[in-house]
Amino acid sequence: MSTVVVPQTPIATQSDAWRKVVGTCHMVMGLRKDYLDSLRVVQAEIGFEHIRGHGIFHDWMGVLRRYDVAGHAGTRYVWTYLDQIVDAYLEVGIKPFLELGFMPEALASGPETVFWWKGNITPPADYREWNALVAATLRHLIARYGRDEVLSWPVEVWNEPSLPEFWKDASKAEYFRLYEETAKTVKDVDAGFQVGGPATSPQADDWYVPFAEHTDATDTPVDFFSFHAYATGPAQHVPFGVYQTMHGAGSLLEQFARPRTILGGHRLASVPHHVTEFNTSYRPDNPVHDTAYNAAYLAPTLVGGGDLVDSFSYWTFSDMFEEQGVPAAIFHGGFGLLTHRQIKKPTYHLYAFMARLGTQVLARGDDHLVTRHDDGRITVLAWQPVGGTDDPTEPDTHTLRLSIPLARPDGTTPATAYVHRRRVNNHDGNAFTAWQQLGRPASPTTRQLDRLYEAAEPTVTHHATDVAPGIGRIDLPLTLAHHEITLIEIDPVTDETPTWTDDTRILGR
Amino acid sequence: MSTVVVPQTPIATQSDAWRKVVGTCHMVMGLRKDYLDSLRVVQAEIGFEHIRGHGIFHDWMGVLRRYDVAGHAGTRYVWTYLDQIVDAYLEVGIKPFLELGFMPEALASGPETVFWWKGNITPPADYREWNALVAATLRHLIARYGRDEVLSWPVEVWNEPSLPEFWKDASKAEYFRLYEETAKTVKDVDAGFQVGGPATSPQADDWYVPFAEHTDATDTPVDFFSFHAYATGPAQHVPFGVYQTMHGAGSLLEQFARPRTILGGHRLASVPHHVTEFNTSYRPDNPVHDTAYNAAYLAPTLVGGGDLVDSFSYWTFSDMFEEQGVPAAIFHGGFGLLTHRQIKKPTYHLYAFMARLGTQVLARGDDHLVTRHDDGRITVLAWQPVGGTDDPTEPDTHTLRLSIPLARPDGTTPATAYVHRRRVNNHDGNAFTAWQQLGRPASPTTRQLDRLYEAAEPTVTHHATDVAPGIGRIDLPLTLAHHEITLIEIDPVTDETPTWTDDTRILGR
Amino acid sequence: MSTVVVPQTPIATQSDAWRKVVGTCHMVMGLRKDYLDSLRVVQAEIGFEHIRGHGIFHDWMGVLRRYDVAGHAGTRYVWTYLDQIVDAYLEVGIKPFLELGFMPEALASGPETVFWWKGNITPPADYREWNALVAATLRHLIARYGRDEVLSWPVEVWNEPSLPEFWKDASKAEYFRLYEETAKTVKDVDAGFQVGGPATSPQADDWYVPFAEHTDATDTPVDFFSFHAYATGPAQHVPFGVYQTMHGAGSLLEQFARPRTILGGHRLASVPHHVTEFNTSYRPDNPVHDTAYNAAYLAPTLVGGGDLVDSFSYWTFSDMFEEQGVPAAIFHGGFGLLTHRQIKKPTYHLYAFMARLGTQVLARGDDHLVTRHDDGRITVLAWQPVGGTDDPTEPDTHTLRLSIPLARPDGTTPATAYVHRRRVNNHDGNAFTAWQQLGRPASPTTRQLDRLYEAAEPTVTHHATDVAPGIGRIDLPLTLAHHEITLIEIDPVTDETPTWTDDTRILGR
Amino acid sequence: MSTVVVPQTPIATQSDAWRKVVGTCHMVMGLRKDYLDSLRVVQAEIGFEHIRGHGIFHDWMGVLRRYDVAGHAGTRYVWTYLDQIVDAYLEVGIKPFLELGFMPEALASGPETVFWWKGNITPPADYREWNALVAATLRHLIARYGRDEVLSWPVEVWNEPSLPEFWKDASKAEYFRLYEETAKTVKDVDAGFQVGGPATSPQADDWYVPFAEHTDATDTPVDFFSFHAYATGPAQHVPFGVYQTMHGAGSLLEQFARPRTILGGHRLASVPHHVTEFNTSYRPDNPVHDTAYNAAYLAPTLVGGGDLVDSFSYWTFSDMFEEQGVPAAIFHGGFGLLTHRQIKKPTYHLYAFMARLGTQVLARGDDHLVTRHDDGRITVLAWQPVGGTDDPTEPDTHTLRLSIPLARPDGTTPATAYVHRRRVNNHDGNAFTAWQQLGRPASPTTRQLDRLYEAAEPTVTHHATDVAPGIGRIDLPLTLAHHEITLIEIDPVTDETPTWTDDTRILGR
Repeated sequence: MSTVVVPQTPIATQSDAWRKVVGTCHMVMGLRKDYLDSLRVVQAEIGFEHIRGHGIFHDWMGVLRRYDVAGHAGTRYVWTYLDQIVDAYLEVGIKPFLELGFMPEALASGPETVFWWKGNITPPADYREWNALVAATLRHLIARYGRDEVLSWPVEVWNEPSLPEFWKDASKAEYFRLYEETAKTVKDVDAGFQVGGPATSPQADDWYVPFAEHTDATDTPVDFFSFHAYATGPAQHVPFGVYQTMHGAGSLLEQFARPRTILGGHRLASVPHHVTEFNTSYRPDNPVHDTAYNAAYLAPTLVGGGDLVDSFSYWTFSDMFEEQGVPAAIFHGGFGLLTHRQIKKPTYHLYAFMARLGTQVLARGDDHLVTRHDDGRITVLAWQPVGGTDDPTEPDTHTLRLSIPLARPDGTTPATAYVHRRRVNNHDGNAFTAWQQLGRPASPTTRQLDRLYEAAEPTVTHHATDVAPGIGRIDLPLTLAHHEITLIEIDPVTDETPTWTDDTRILGR
Repeated sequence: MSTVVVPQTPIATQSDAWRKVVGTCHMVMGLRKDYLDSLRVVQAEIGFEHIRGHGIFHDWMGVLRRYDVAGHAGTRYVWTYLDQIVDAYLEVGIKPFLELGFMPEALASGPETVFWWKGNITPPADYREWNALVAATLRHLIARYGRDEVLSWPVEVWNEPSLPEFWKDASKAEYFRLYEETAKTVKDVDAGFQVGGPATSPQADDWYVPFAEHTDATDTPVDFFSFHAYATGPAQHVPFGVYQTMHGAGSLLEQFARPRTILGGHRLASVPHHVTEFNTSYRPDNPVHDTAYNAAYLAPTLVGGGDLVDSFSYWTFSDMFEEQGVPAAIFHGGFGLLTHRQIKKPTYHLYAFMARLGTQVLARGDDHLVTRHDDGRITVLAWQPVGGTDDPTEPDTHTLRLSIPLARPDGTTPATAYVHRRRVNNHDGNAFTAWQQLGRPASPTTRQLDRLYEAAEPTVTHHATDVAPGIGRIDLPLTLAHHEITLIEIDPVTDETPTWTDDTRILGR
Repeated sequence: MSTVVVPQTPIATQSDAWRKVVGTCHMVMGLRKDYLDSLRVVQAEIGFEHIRGHGIFHDWMGVLRRYDVAGHAGTRYVWTYLDQIVDAYLEVGIKPFLELGFMPEALASGPETVFWWKGNITPPADYREWNALVAATLRHLIARYGRDEVLSWPVEVWNEPSLPEFWKDASKAEYFRLYEETAKTVKDVDAGFQVGGPATSPQADDWYVPFAEHTDATDTPVDFFSFHAYATGPAQHVPFGVYQTMHGAGSLLEQFARPRTILGGHRLASVPHHVTEFNTSYRPDNPVHDTAYNAAYLAPTLVGGGDLVDSFSYWTFSDMFEEQGVPAAIFHGGFGLLTHRQIKKPTYHLYAFMARLGTQVLARGDDHLVTRHDDGRITVLAWQPVGGTDDPTEPDTHTLRLSIPLARPDGTTPATAYVHRRRVNNHDGNAFTAWQQLGRPASPTTRQLDRLYEAAEPTVTHHATDVAPGIGRIDLPLTLAHHEITLIEIDPVTDETPTWTDDTRILGR
Repeated sequence: MSTVVVPQTPIATQSDAWRKVVGTCHMVMGLRKDYLDSLRVVQAEIGFEHIRGHGIFHDWMGVLRRYDVAGHAGTRYVWTYLDQIVDAYLEVGIKPFLELGFMPEALASGPETVFWWKGNITPPADYREWNALVAATLRHLIARYGRDEVLSWPVEVWNEPSLPEFWKDASKAEYFRLYEETAKTVKDVDAGFQVGGPATSPQADDWYVPFAEHTDATDTPVDFFSFHAYATGPAQHVPFGVYQTMHGAGSLLEQFARPRTILGGHRLASVPHHVTEFNTSYRPDNPVHDTAYNAAYLAPTLVGGGDLVDSFSYWTFSDMFEEQGVPAAIFHGGFGLLTHRQIKKPTYHLYAFMARLGTQVLARGDDHLVTRHDDGRITVLAWQPVGGTDDPTEPDTHTLRLSIPLARPDGTTPATAYVHRRRVNNHDGNAFTAWQQLGRPASPTTRQLDRLYEAAEPTVTHHATDVAPGIGRIDLPLTLAHHEITLIEIDPVTDETPTWTDDTRILGR
């Protein structure tokens, strides 16, 4: 193992594309306490900017309401739940990334639905009514939350129209019409809105250019381009769960880059690209989501994604998620960074580690990212590189060695440094492992939950190390356990020890 | 107006039947933050013992789950949500009053449902599976919460089988079978459970004796008798609401008493009687629930109900309630003591006033209840008597006058008393009136909510009054405004004023 | 009574000089929970910018420490408590207004002290040590809290050197030396500091010009000019309290203006002037502080003070104050806006009312201030004008009538307005009155405290009123009770009432 | 190393003498936020019953107040601070253990004081006034908190009269008079009080019998016997601190037992004995208090103390302590279980570990205590035995091996157990070590505090282990690091793993 000599001069500024957006189950879940408790935890330690989920117009939200009673007939828009949810979002410091869909039953052209919670996936029977709904919603939001605030919320049209499960017949023509009607309505409400699509599922290569050409031809606004990326193969079902193959390590970054390549010189190649959903598995019941492997697999994606796109949204922050019905156990392979009851998964910690990085990138490699903060401290993220189904199994440990420059902001070199490390791997900071050891209790008791909360915390170690005098560097050899992600923070030390201190006398011997 | 001379010796002990149980929307709503915020408010100021609602087995709770995948087939019971909800109940100090129903779709014998949230109202296709579900649920609850705790939760079988909306064909024979199967299953799990029914709708006179006779004949346990009471006539619909006629003032107490009368000498006349639902209107969209009239109408029911039954459960504590879909406005005539976002309605205050009464009843009349606490203070609840549709309209004010004995616990008489009064009427402590003045905003802004919270608080007044020396009484003349309920607390005063105090010198004049 | 016709066009922008600074007991009290609870309340509803008190170097703060043990001798600066207190200040959003004093015993030139807590009032025995202490303190604060933050904290030299109780012999010459040494030391640490004095007691007219001339002559920096103002005559003692005469109504504003007048054309007339202490009485045991009279007396001072000075600091925010020892009763005439245990006094409400005013001043008179907010609503502060000892007693009520223009921000005129009023007077919003009625309990029980908290809240009323069509004005006649201050907020109403609403049908009659 | 075979049948019930009382700095410190924050932490995780400290009558409490003003002269008792402090105690669930002392200056017979905060240590000039003060205080407490509550608070007379620093001339005769006057006064107020003394300093052997004989002779009530125990030799001073020798390991238990031995057959040998202060060092500035050694040294004392005395009170729960003035650094050798700002010391964890033990003692040895809970789980406390100055230095590690029986409450044997361990030693769970590594910052920054909080938490490990089938035992080999205390909790596991689970498929390989 050779030593990576980290330079003193930054090579880049750390992107925060990884933190711009996070996913959520359908919007009505935002009324739930467990969901909001989780969002509060996530925002305190990670701090996403936007949140995106389906179902703003799903009937459980109760927005569009027909009535015909006692001689009074018409449509009423009801904001009871929408306002409660958006109020709660803003209270914890996160903004909506609006996804317009699915179809209220009263406007639907057919009975087809998706998911346990039955989102209607058909085009509107009457586009005028759809447009009226969209316009009324945006106008209400502006009235309630103020124009400046609401214009900072991107507006995306529908979800994964490229799949027949999400859009009737996966009809391009119909989606292009929906997009055109909707985007123009949005801009009619306020030209300051940022509107985009086509929110396509992974590898919908044949959608990008036609979408670009159609919007050009119809003079339809497209302020950003959106699509999804997932890294797994087909589902192999068992009761209440699936197993899946996993694509190779670089798969997600390749997917992030692909639309720009395909769009070539088209204008849409240069608007912001938002990956409005990504994860390893696209299933909410694949246990891979609960593992340290998931975190190690995603580490290079989080580190490098910002080179390729403007945001990429982890699907999703919480296991409070009902696409396949009510989860049958506390660990059930859900998408969440947090389980129900806020047990942190390894991937939660990957995000929390990212949130502790400095803004100056000093070095970046296959297994590490070294950053510096304005106060001079150094923060290192390191991980064991892991591959997919067809890659060889990773060794039990992974080692690397860094030579790191350390100085105070005023340029002086400290004599020692305080080195603090957080570890998450197949055993440490791994509540899923503890849960297996506890016998996999489906609905844990308070006592079992206490064990899981403790096990979910990263293992912390600390030591003091000498800074080489004159040279101003510390030597940092690192051994990572299986599937480990680790965060090291290195602080310059100022010694305040009085001259009369003599620790050997403490015990009186 | 003559003076009521309140005696010194208690005539009774105040019953807490009014506080034993409160109603809730279907159980899955217990996951919502607004619901739990309201429950916390209610428990802090009122403190109910039990909470009863529908839908413990509704599919949105996800309890009963069939699977048949990859060669594995069977039924799994999932406690994910049930445990979260019961945990939350116990955390705020309220216990479940278990109502077993409605039917999981997988067990149902037909497609009929009730309510917007589609509770299946058909008998089980296979009673063995129903019994297995009941037994598994109770066993799980005992394992999680402990036998002593769970045996203090009454178990009621189904809801309003006397109505075809809630039980297919309102079939007596089928309900009696359901009751028998269920009650015996409950006792098989633990003979210590208290099980009961028939949970009939108002005026189901023809159900009581047959239920008694059938349970006798089949040796079926009945530990308590339950039924419902409401005071309104048929619904006159408008969009998103109804208006209704109201029965006369004594109607609810008459309904409370009726089953015992009809049951005559039967054993079921002497088991505990629980009114497991009552209110003025049985509709969740009648604005009467939001008025001071509602509180004044119910005052004599709360004061006198404990003479007739062992509990009577206000339907419901919160407007977070979806039987008719998502409420269209903050005030929408919901059952709740609290609206969404915890605005207190006049009937909330009626309960809060009841919770401040002493245990010794000194006097009770058509418009007042006088109680004493162990520390000697006196608490008076007074109200304007109001009637129903056919009664004359109440005058704008109502007056009464009380002569109240006051002493310290050691028998001494204070020279003065501190008299503190809380008022709720058509204007004071009335957020519904403020909401009308604000233009009835369907989804109020933060600023409007602040106004509503303030308007919802009772108007408070206070003064000092002399206690007649020698006699040890104070004279309390009261004028109540339209539809007022009022609470007066009278504390003996001990004067600690130093001899050198001279308030006339404070302003230096 | 004639009607004041309030103009539509603002005549001024509301000053926030009243909110710039608030006083506190000596700094070590900042470790107390009750003190910090009060500060949190004050900051939530009022939101002062800075806090100023004595004693940063008092020995109870433990900052300057001499040692001579086992061959080690020297001076150590200890920040244990200072950091805890400043951390707590910043946590609730308030910044220190640094007052450098009194003298640590180890540096003192004599034994003279002031107050029960014994602040040493003598000059330093060695100015080099004093300067070293000042410099070390400021350098430490910058290191801990950052330069930008700390430079926003003004630095004042000593307190009331014009009185022999606070500065030995009230020696001008010695103070001028202290000022010069200190101010130059402060600027040596960082030229960006704002330093000032002379922090004189009321009516120290003979100090202003000599201070100006001396600092000119010695080229000593003076970034602001500071002094104090109080409105009472000599103390007439009783046990645990005093009574005093009160100067006429305009006294405080006259005192605010006086130094600028006396300084004439000197440069110090044009630097910021800070009244670093003011109140009616200068005694912490005069019951006038607990009265509504105190609030009414100060209302014109708060409204008009910003015309004359850059800040004026109410002495003090809390009764947690020990200049005369431990207070003997919950109401003891303390300076506080809040008593121990956070009971709000009338003057607290005066400040809370000020904090709710809009930025556009539409009208200002002897008994009212009318302001408008950017959202179109109108906020009115009104008070009964009151005078001092030699003025006639105020009548029991005071009336005024305002004609107020009302429009939405888009220029449209609403049909109605929601008028919301908060009242504080000799009875309403007056816990002191309730405390008298309760027999003046020195250390109230929990139950008595509940009564006092309730009594301390302003009485709130609300109604809807028509806006004159075409004219766009509402008529606001006001009757104020004895010594009342009142706040009226007037909101334009948008009517959302559905066409089918018919309130006459609610009761079913 | 042989294996300790832990029996299945309990050999004893765990005593809670260690948790009955904890010490505190003088009472007025109870007004401080940091103090109360620490008390809240301590009560949440440890839960002491009583709290004892000096200074209830110190002048900073402001209780006894003479006045002579304007013709009014007398004594007033002021409860302002006493009530705030006792309210705060009860709010966090801890009761006072009343220590009556020191002398208010107004009652003192001389000027002698003790401590930086100057507690007057002289007898009362007039015993009638002292008795009046005692009686008034107890009567006030009963009036405020209720007789049942207050009678559960023991009353101790003075502190360490056997030392001239604490009682003028350490006069036995004068103390016996003080005791007699006080004890009889206490019983006059209410015979139900438990009163005791003589609260002697360590090794005051010549006080016990004379105290017993004098109280016999004078018929003075003695409901309990109290004294102190410390394990260090004389102080070797350095600035802001001391080093000291330490007695041998058994010293404290010997001191606990000694008074009973000396009292022989006297009645006072059989009343409850309370060690109202104990610790290793009697100095608040000895760094030994901050070490893991301190915890390991005290472990056998906590485990065995209940065999000898009815309570023993750790002196003290918090470093918010001013006997030697304001602490000069966050770690300064204070008595506290917690530092300022609530950093947990190793001895805090010793208490927290004790609080997690079961009630059934299965085994007890020189380095371990094995307990069982009613739910079947096993909790083991283990420690490295350590000695004092004259004992040999402990080896770097210590090993032991336990064979532990494990069964569910229903008697069944689980197949596996979940073993959870918390470690505190010279590195783990040791904020003092981290503080040394951080350069000993006297007043740490927020960032340094975060490091210290993390370092202060015990290192947690967990694993699953097989339970030997048929035998129902687990093998538990333990290696402890230098000066380690460790807590192991062993839970029976119930396996809920579904049959279809196959973890090898998770990664898709």
